[in-house]
Amino acid sequence: MITSVSNQRVKRIVQLNKKAGERKREGVFVAEGIKMFLEAPEEYVEEIYVSEDCPILFGKGMLLEWQEDRKRVKEKLEKRGYETVSRDVFGKMSDTQAPQGILCVVRQRRYELADMLREGGAALLLVLEDIQDPGNLGTILRSGEGAGVSGIVMSRDTADIYNPKVIRATMGSVYRMPFCYVDDLENAIGQMKKAGTEVFAAHLEGKKSYDQCDYRKASAFLIGNEGKGLTERISLLADVRIKIPMEGKVESLNAAVAASLLAFEAARQRRG
Amino acid sequence: MITSVSNQRVKRIVQLNKKAGERKREGVFVAEGIKMFLEAPEEYVEEIYVSEDCPILFGKGMLLEWQEDRKRVKEKLEKRGYETVSRDVFGKMSDTQAPQGILCVVRQRRYELADMLREGGAALLLVLEDIQDPGNLGTILRSGEGAGVSGIVMSRDTADIYNPKVIRATMGSVYRMPFCYVDDLENAIGQMKKAGTEVFAAHLEGKKSYDQCDYRKASAFLIGNEGKGLTERISLLADVRIKIPMEGKVESLNAAVAASLLAFEAARQRRG
Repeated sequence: MITSVSNQRVKRIVQLNKKAGERKREGVFVAEGIKMFLEAPEEYVEEIYVSEDCPILFGKGMLLEWQEDRKRVKEKLEKRGYETVSRDVFGKMSDTQAPQGILCVVRQRRYELADMLREGGAALLLVLEDIQDPGNLGTILRSGEGAGVSGIVMSRDTADIYNPKVIRATMGSVYRMPFCYVDDLENAIGQMKKAGTEVFAAHLEGKKSYDQCDYRKASAFLIGNEGKGLTERISLLADVRIKIPMEGKVESLNAAVAASLLAFEAARQRRG
Repeated sequence: MITSVSNQRVKRIVQLNKKAGERKREGVFVAEGIKMFLEAPEEYVEEIYVSEDCPILFGKGMLLEWQEDRKRVKEKLEKRGYETVSRDVFGKMSDTQAPQGILCVVRQRRYELADMLREGGAALLLVLEDIQDPGNLGTILRSGEGAGVSGIVMSRDTADIYNPKVIRATMGSVYRMPFCYVDDLENAIGQMKKAGTEVFAAHLEGKKSYDQCDYRKASAFLIGNEGKGLTERISLLADVRIKIPMEGKVESLNAAVAASLLAFEAARQRRG
């Protein structure tokens, strides 16, 4: 059992949680909590750490709905092996205020824009320009998977998808949703158009209401930064500028809400 | 100018930011930042504090889009009077990491469920059971106003709507969206039904897809807690349990996203 917070392995996890640069250098990220552990694809998990007082393993008076999870956690731990750490050490390694006592180091996955565009069915892409809030980014991945989005394309200045707050907000979608960062968003949008994808920009000055367009063929939605929206340069690349009609004095919606509304409108059309 | 962080007025603001009990006792809340200051209804503003280095007032190299805001801020400050505080004191009073140098104390407003039900047009209500995350609650108010929701009804254990993080996430909707807390959510839902409102529960086991119901008459959506969803007791009170069809392995959506999807589906039907 690791009991010292100055242990090198403990220090490494702290660095991986804090620094995007470290995550990039090592090509891994930290996934914390029962759900994130259970959903982590086995072949990508590199290390597992469990607290000596991890509630789901050692807690008494277990809730009924936890018993199935406990069984699955135990099986996965036995299969892979893990390191036990003291309560204090886990507190140090954890990025949350109420740690669930389990975390794992997971290898990053690489996706290419070309693969997203080559896919069989009609692509449904979300294109993010400089989204900053980790909660918003994670929520966009979660909603995206739920709506059947086929890929998320991000400008280089978008928040780091492997930030622990993003990971948590994805609720596991980070393991399954293809995504990529691009240095040149203009060029990436050009590639989408060349591949036959119709590009829609969510824009305050959009003329067409978002529910008046057809998203059943290959479609991409451009979503702008929380404070500033899309830059003029990027929004002008869209085939159509669309708006979400608004009551009251609301100027714009939260970026994750706007992305979700568009993705689920596409899902609704593709279902019906 | 107030230069001491131990000044009683400074201490009061810190307490109002930190403690729901203090806000309740005094019947006020703190609204921070340019937008929240500009949109605060004049008759409800009790006090205004400005930092000696407030960028919009004293900043150089002003962005063009700020100049209009600067003019409006100055006019409002001159009309109402304000207190200047040192940079350090404002840092202490502020709840944000990058303060905009202006905040005001605003009187709380009271709304009654009966008023929300009595309104002329077809009511559109969001009913929140124990929503905990301040960002989610604020986002629900913002989306709600945008979708034309007529009122938000919250269980007593929902987060405090006057929490500074909620206030910020509302982007001003807190000033305009009617809301109330109820001790007995079951009873409140009974009142809605008696007033002719059809009640829909967003539920993982819902049979009907959310876009297959008619929300053009008076409607209410029940939205559950982030981790646990709606309690069985409350969801069984609904006339119809609805679901948002989901692709991939996503079990549920972020609570603010789910509430927004339902509210904007109602808005879409009511427009068309």
